[in-house]
Amino acid sequence: MENCTNLALLTDLYQLTMAQSYFQSGKFEPATFSLFVRAYPPNRGYFVAAGLKDVFDFLAGLSFNREAIDYLHSTDMFAADFLDYLKALRFTGEVWAVPEGRLFFKDEPILEITAPMIEAQLVETFVINQINLQSLIASKAARCVHAARGRTVVDFSLRRTHGIDAGIKVARSSYLAGCAGTSNLLAGQRYGIPVVGTMAHSFVSSFERESDAFRAFVSSFPDNSILLIDTYDPLAGARKAVEVAREMAARGQRLRGVRIDSGDLAALAREVRRIFDDAGLRDVKIVGSGGLDEYDLADFAEANVPYDSYGVGTRMGVSGDAPWLDMAYKLVQQNGRPVLKLSSGKAYWPGKKQLFRLVDGKRRLKKDVIALRGEVVDGGEALLQKVMEKGKTQGAYPSLKEIRERFLAEFALLDEKTKAIRDPQVYPVEISLRLKQLNDEIARHVTQTELEPGVYAQRELGES
Amino acid sequence: MENCTNLALLTDLYQLTMAQSYFQSGKFEPATFSLFVRAYPPNRGYFVAAGLKDVFDFLAGLSFNREAIDYLHSTDMFAADFLDYLKALRFTGEVWAVPEGRLFFKDEPILEITAPMIEAQLVETFVINQINLQSLIASKAARCVHAARGRTVVDFSLRRTHGIDAGIKVARSSYLAGCAGTSNLLAGQRYGIPVVGTMAHSFVSSFERESDAFRAFVSSFPDNSILLIDTYDPLAGARKAVEVAREMAARGQRLRGVRIDSGDLAALAREVRRIFDDAGLRDVKIVGSGGLDEYDLADFAEANVPYDSYGVGTRMGVSGDAPWLDMAYKLVQQNGRPVLKLSSGKAYWPGKKQLFRLVDGKRRLKKDVIALRGEVVDGGEALLQKVMEKGKTQGAYPSLKEIRERFLAEFALLDEKTKAIRDPQVYPVEISLRLKQLNDEIARHVTQTELEPGVYAQRELGES
Repeated sequence: MENCTNLALLTDLYQLTMAQSYFQSGKFEPATFSLFVRAYPPNRGYFVAAGLKDVFDFLAGLSFNREAIDYLHSTDMFAADFLDYLKALRFTGEVWAVPEGRLFFKDEPILEITAPMIEAQLVETFVINQINLQSLIASKAARCVHAARGRTVVDFSLRRTHGIDAGIKVARSSYLAGCAGTSNLLAGQRYGIPVVGTMAHSFVSSFERESDAFRAFVSSFPDNSILLIDTYDPLAGARKAVEVAREMAARGQRLRGVRIDSGDLAALAREVRRIFDDAGLRDVKIVGSGGLDEYDLADFAEANVPYDSYGVGTRMGVSGDAPWLDMAYKLVQQNGRPVLKLSSGKAYWPGKKQLFRLVDGKRRLKKDVIALRGEVVDGGEALLQKVMEKGKTQGAYPSLKEIRERFLAEFALLDEKTKAIRDPQVYPVEISLRLKQLNDEIARHVTQTELEPGVYAQRELGES
Repeated sequence: MENCTNLALLTDLYQLTMAQSYFQSGKFEPATFSLFVRAYPPNRGYFVAAGLKDVFDFLAGLSFNREAIDYLHSTDMFAADFLDYLKALRFTGEVWAVPEGRLFFKDEPILEITAPMIEAQLVETFVINQINLQSLIASKAARCVHAARGRTVVDFSLRRTHGIDAGIKVARSSYLAGCAGTSNLLAGQRYGIPVVGTMAHSFVSSFERESDAFRAFVSSFPDNSILLIDTYDPLAGARKAVEVAREMAARGQRLRGVRIDSGDLAALAREVRRIFDDAGLRDVKIVGSGGLDEYDLADFAEANVPYDSYGVGTRMGVSGDAPWLDMAYKLVQQNGRPVLKLSSGKAYWPGKKQLFRLVDGKRRLKKDVIALRGEVVDGGEALLQKVMEKGKTQGAYPSLKEIRERFLAEFALLDEKTKAIRDPQVYPVEISLRLKQLNDEIARHVTQTELEPGVYAQRELGES
């Protein structure tokens, strides 16, 4: 998809009007922008980094093709010399990023881009678009998988994700965060994610009788049938599935499971489990689906509702209770001068930064420290890695499986209270003394300069 | 985007496992599926149809390429003869649809596809994916534009939409529903939507002083500058913008406007308006942005907050208070036999249908009637139009501007109480007597057949 449309235009008009004004002001100095999330949505205590791979591919391939330039020309807003400049523009900057699959927290820099001002500014829209969506969904999926306490969770959300790109990225992000598979075949093809599925109500109602539908399906998939039993009545459906399972057993086959998609899902699971257990079919699995999210899954786990796995759709695929992150990409340094804005409620940390993670004696996550790029925090792991230099990626990109394993390993070391589905405990994130001092200093200067006009002394920031 | 990736695989695995079972059961008879929304999200009283164009393009181009077939083969789930069948599969069906830009209501059929079972089933995922998103956003955008009571509303959501496809479709859907433009250049290029923009905080902070930034920008865009004034302090920013506006006036230019993006947006607009009015700059417009949605816009309109236009972003672009519709695509007829399911809380109307809209003497919308396809409702306009036959589209597709005008014209005729931003009145939707009778009849038969095994008499439904 991404390699066909010229995505250079997938940006806001103001990125290009600002670019023209930078161009005409001769502003080609390096600028650093920092990406972070300002606040936790309700009931969130952590985020999972995802989306970086698409940002890489975008940055590495950034260029305005002829149609894009022609379109910009047609708006009558852009000067000919600026459009000539755009024609030749490629991304030549440096990118530091928290790797995909790592945990991150509120206010932490997860990506910092240093590039000539126009390049660094221009890519904002795409960077936020992809990392916001994918980190949002990875975080939501991590919650679903955690809430299920060992029961399998799979992604059934494609029909209600916000469009095509979201469908594919939700499958990848949710697999990255511990889902076992997806119903989305295109994501299966593209990313090698295991694909899973059962059957729809329409399959059942297309046959004269429900049991005809069951028999046709197990005949097509004798090793891998999960029968949907609630088209007419889930308990009657379960009894018909028992018949079919017995017929299969007589042929040396085994019914893999049944799915319940409506009604009182907790009560039905218990009744259906009893029907199968009473028939001696203890190994027939029960799959639950139908508007589920992590809150349901946590309640079911607490009450030992006998589901073996869950198909989670809409509410995970759109992060139903919190469909966006308050993610921002802010100019933090320009031509060696650290900067910030003072807008009410929207402050952030200036300068190029590094993020450190500290663990305790059992390697459990203890706290993070946001520091300046040149600082060292004793015993802290530096999370921002240089992943692009002069517009080129550094080293091979890890596989999705590796990213998933890295996520699962780190997630296991995060405190249960921070992972709580409801009212999680806030994870400690500290600010280094030097960063605090720098911030105070700039805020003082900006206040003097902008609110009571005075002299603003250009300063250089010591950095690595 | 869509014409590069083979979107045939953008579907759920179960669509293809069911297809194989249909194939192996010899089920090639025509089936009809119906698309509808089961319920209103909170505070919603109507929906706006959008997304049909993408469904057309998908259906017209549906085919599994070699890589898709190879991938399916690699899953070890599919038989060779079925994959051969898939290779040759094209969409050959008939589509009836409510045109884009028309209003629709809960339970109403907005799209009905009749095609050989496998084709009609397979396309479910894509059909819902696109029409759910686009109708969701068109409905949300209509609310925003309505709430603004004549003030201009533009789409600023691209950075927080769920991915690339959503970014483009949100721009189109929101324009269709009355937005005046979008910040999204790719959508501007693709759909001819007017593109709009101001400047970012980073532009301001990249200059030594805020006024330097303002001067640089108006020098680049003397006819079309909207200055962002809240980087440090909105009132100090407004006073600097006054200076710049006066300098421009001395040059025979005019500052178009200023934007406020944070803080108490209502109070600030009043103070900023006064600053400009006191300076004799009554024609400088004020743009509001920053987490706005229709609830804010309605409150601002009620309180006469002096904004001239709004940039609406995240909350519109993800439909923040209701990020999905409960949209379903259900088998309603199979080989001439109307069908339904009985699952609790998820019932729907069987058979091929038509939807009629009735107006009063002043052409205001009075009520809708859901009927069977062959029925005629006196004085009712039939909304489902045959738009595809034998897999080919019928006639030229209207332009986006025409669709937008059709929407605005019909929306003006919908009762204000139904359009209310909070607690709207339910629009009357009736079911025809014949449809009710058919439904009762099938429900009785299904209950007898599936709950107490008996004889199910195949019946033919009289239809057009």
